[in-house]
Amino acid sequence: MTNLADLTTPYLLLAPDKMRANIARLQSHMSTLGIPLRPHVKTAKSIDIVRQLFPTGKGPITVSTLKEAEYFAEHGFTDMTYAVGISPDKLLRVARLNQSGVRLSVLLDSKAQAEAVVSFAKRDSFNIPALIEIDCDGERAGLQRGDKKIVEIARILHENKQFSGILMHAGGSYHCPDKAAKEAAAEHERETAVAVRDDLLAAGLPCDVVSVGSTPTAHFAKDLSGVTEVRAGVYVFHDLVMAGIHVCSPDDIAISVVATVIGHRPDKGWIMTDAGWMALSRDRGTAQQELDQGYGLVCAMDGTPYTDLIVSSTSQEHGVLSVRKGSKAKLPKLEIGSKVRILPNHACATASQFAGYVVPDGDELVYWPRINGW
Amino acid sequence: MTNLADLTTPYLLLAPDKMRANIARLQSHMSTLGIPLRPHVKTAKSIDIVRQLFPTGKGPITVSTLKEAEYFAEHGFTDMTYAVGISPDKLLRVARLNQSGVRLSVLLDSKAQAEAVVSFAKRDSFNIPALIEIDCDGERAGLQRGDKKIVEIARILHENKQFSGILMHAGGSYHCPDKAAKEAAAEHERETAVAVRDDLLAAGLPCDVVSVGSTPTAHFAKDLSGVTEVRAGVYVFHDLVMAGIHVCSPDDIAISVVATVIGHRPDKGWIMTDAGWMALSRDRGTAQQELDQGYGLVCAMDGTPYTDLIVSSTSQEHGVLSVRKGSKAKLPKLEIGSKVRILPNHACATASQFAGYVVPDGDELVYWPRINGW
Repeated sequence: MTNLADLTTPYLLLAPDKMRANIARLQSHMSTLGIPLRPHVKTAKSIDIVRQLFPTGKGPITVSTLKEAEYFAEHGFTDMTYAVGISPDKLLRVARLNQSGVRLSVLLDSKAQAEAVVSFAKRDSFNIPALIEIDCDGERAGLQRGDKKIVEIARILHENKQFSGILMHAGGSYHCPDKAAKEAAAEHERETAVAVRDDLLAAGLPCDVVSVGSTPTAHFAKDLSGVTEVRAGVYVFHDLVMAGIHVCSPDDIAISVVATVIGHRPDKGWIMTDAGWMALSRDRGTAQQELDQGYGLVCAMDGTPYTDLIVSSTSQEHGVLSVRKGSKAKLPKLEIGSKVRILPNHACATASQFAGYVVPDGDELVYWPRINGW
Repeated sequence: MTNLADLTTPYLLLAPDKMRANIARLQSHMSTLGIPLRPHVKTAKSIDIVRQLFPTGKGPITVSTLKEAEYFAEHGFTDMTYAVGISPDKLLRVARLNQSGVRLSVLLDSKAQAEAVVSFAKRDSFNIPALIEIDCDGERAGLQRGDKKIVEIARILHENKQFSGILMHAGGSYHCPDKAAKEAAAEHERETAVAVRDDLLAAGLPCDVVSVGSTPTAHFAKDLSGVTEVRAGVYVFHDLVMAGIHVCSPDDIAISVVATVIGHRPDKGWIMTDAGWMALSRDRGTAQQELDQGYGLVCAMDGTPYTDLIVSSTSQEHGVLSVRKGSKAKLPKLEIGSKVRILPNHACATASQFAGYVVPDGDELVYWPRINGW
């Protein structure tokens, strides 16, 4: 969709002022702590948006796919970390980027991966910088603090001058609605990182990069001594999951899906729209939170939420709006053809359902394409 | 992704032999019942696949978006039904297709929509054929049998020669694991359709089209007297949700996501792969079924399922494989770099995460692009 004259719903609307405020808020916090940010571009996947973070720069950025790495390299970015465990089938694409003048670091947590990366790099005499993934809260991949394999893997990499340092992601912070719990998650992430770094230094190894981050811990960290960079992604847009754990307010959310009313079921208390799961994604990230937002919170086109109106169910191209269970709010009167804006549970998932962003620019709308896929 | 030389995981693999068997199975059943099929292309969204249904033909097909309608029109299809309630903002795109020689029918269930469609068509003196949506099981949109509005709306449309007939979708059949329940859902869909048609005829109105369908009811209908066409979509690929209600077996599923092992967490019984929710979708359609398949059932590359191995959790680009809760099966030994195939919960949702299908063709692989978006 590039012809805005043909714009029909559902489409993804970006509020650039909210996005800029979100970017400024975290940048200001990081400046206070004196730590550089390596934003994760997996949420936005758009050069027009990432240029807001680096108006003239070349990174540093974090990517979640090699397609992102290749796309941002084409746009002049030269400092990237691919923050998903590397597999041998991807080394050719990684090598091509590194041979073209980009510094793309890979991530790993096993000897098998380290040996594959070293042998691939040796064969063609070039460098693939590698980071070891550390697990700080049992949420995903990585080796745990104290695991002897950390030093063994670092040594395999260091012998071929490929070892850069360590990386971790405090994914557990997504389950922390309390301020104190988010602060504790941030401090635990920092402390784990520094302890692992110290083990490496004690073993006579370098550890130049100490990379931590998640949107909640980045915002709630009070001290980042020993850390060399922070990664965060979803903060650029924020979403209902972040609002549900009080990292932002719903009013900070910079993207919404614009939908049109296509029907009514007064017998069921339903308003039907044309934004189903294909537009909103199947993400139900607020289902385990205190306030379940269904498939999204419904707002008027000026951004004001209707009282307790959520997308309560979806099929592929149908969204059902209804009043939240237990609420006494009345269903708003929304005629056929009325437009609403739906705030997403999870910005990364909802944005990925679209090929680009519709962005108000003065009195006009412009279109910022994004990339999906691998 | 069109360069298969650079093929890395995750990618969407299509087994064309399974797909052809699925297509033949339903076509044979419909031939026995003597009712034409109007396949729903919302699942495949690919001309290469829909050409398997209509090798030289022009439809009839069902579409879920105007983008599908425009795409298939460009490929010569001329008989289409847009099976989502129409809104006024979309009429310009509908009109353009109808003026170009395509017959694109729209769907509606309110006077407001009927009046909008009639007044739009009158303005430029051309036809937009319209169907009235009927609800047969309280699952989604539509008017209920006996509602006087059905005749009133039909009359508004008929006065401008725009009334084509009625359409319904027995979405409730997705919750019917029992054979008898699926057969009853099919008969209820048929019976409701015929009763509404008879009400229209009794009111002196025509009702040329009596369109019913869902993948479960299409397969389990024993008699379709009075019906003029059947719609179904997911049957072309099938998926774990369909297998869970015994419309197919897991072995019939024609698409899978190919993933690579990128790590291990023996402490947790996890194998990590590079297919997260971005590849598999967030669909958890088997969660309410008897056998919860997590985010997908894991198979070896030859298609044999590992005993009780499912994708138990996902993040954006990480999938965690583990043995189903309660099972005594052992975690298979899958080294870093091993490939697996993951059968999807919901084929429509998983396929929509990809820009196309990787298809074995003799000893080669070919790529069949698909369209997403609106």
